[in-house]
Amino acid sequence: MRLSDDQIRSRLSRAEFGVLGTVDADRGVHLVPVVFLLDGDRLLIPIDTVKAKSTTRLRRLRNLEQDIRASLLVDHRSEDWSELWWARADLVFVSNAVRTEADAGALRSKYPTYASPGSIDTVLNFEVVNLAGWVAEPGSSPGR
Amino acid sequence: MRLSDDQIRSRLSRAEFGVLGTVDADRGVHLVPVVFLLDGDRLLIPIDTVKAKSTTRLRRLRNLEQDIRASLLVDHRSEDWSELWWARADLVFVSNAVRTEADAGALRSKYPTYASPGSIDTVLNFEVVNLAGWVAEPGSSPGR
Repeated sequence: MRLSDDQIRSRLSRAEFGVLGTVDADRGVHLVPVVFLLDGDRLLIPIDTVKAKSTTRLRRLRNLEQDIRASLLVDHRSEDWSELWWARADLVFVSNAVRTEADAGALRSKYPTYASPGSIDTVLNFEVVNLAGWVAEPGSSPGR
Repeated sequence: MRLSDDQIRSRLSRAEFGVLGTVDADRGVHLVPVVFLLDGDRLLIPIDTVKAKSTTRLRRLRNLEQDIRASLLVDHRSEDWSELWWARADLVFVSNAVRTEADAGALRSKYPTYASPGSIDTVLNFEVVNLAGWVAEPGSSPGR
């Protein structure tokens, strides 16, 4: 069964983890798990110093500089397939230069790990351009 | 910390759910949760009749017919971020016309839901072209 935009927003807001997909010139698609915050029609993805990376030239960033289109998927998993659901936000990349105190504060409220100073390096800003969502239900429709 | 190819294969094999990313002409990237089976350098994704869809012209199929490149991500989530890990297989699409008894049998062994006759409609065949994986660990490296 398709989810309404309100239901999709609600599920995206409550989710802690999602998968970010960006367009990759070589491989076609680049996928990476992320934490994120939905704020109206903005979606924020922090680049943090907690989940240690080897470089600040992350592939997701290189990709977004070449193609601003992206997508974020949240999916609920269960051994009981009648409990499955997913919610997706298609995105366009707006900017990564910003780390406002308001954004950092909102991210700290959602993720207590970010309470430690300096844990958020920068914040990727996206605009939500399309929502989609699906929930399993007997006799219902599309998992597209 | 980077995972070795053996570790990545082992984690992909044990995982029940993944996220499939395909190249989408309009949106850039299309993400959808999938079940799958890793079999050596092949990766199989069933199109089933269990998680009801509205159409057999799924967007993932339309995309793969236009661009054979794809990627599958498995990620482990935890409130304790020191337990996070992910494993990724970059793929090329080989064929969807096939549903051999061997493939269907292997999928039924992994997913008991497929025991019911007719539950697997067809099977997407991919070749694994690259593996990547990361596990959080204090003082360790890349989450690229």
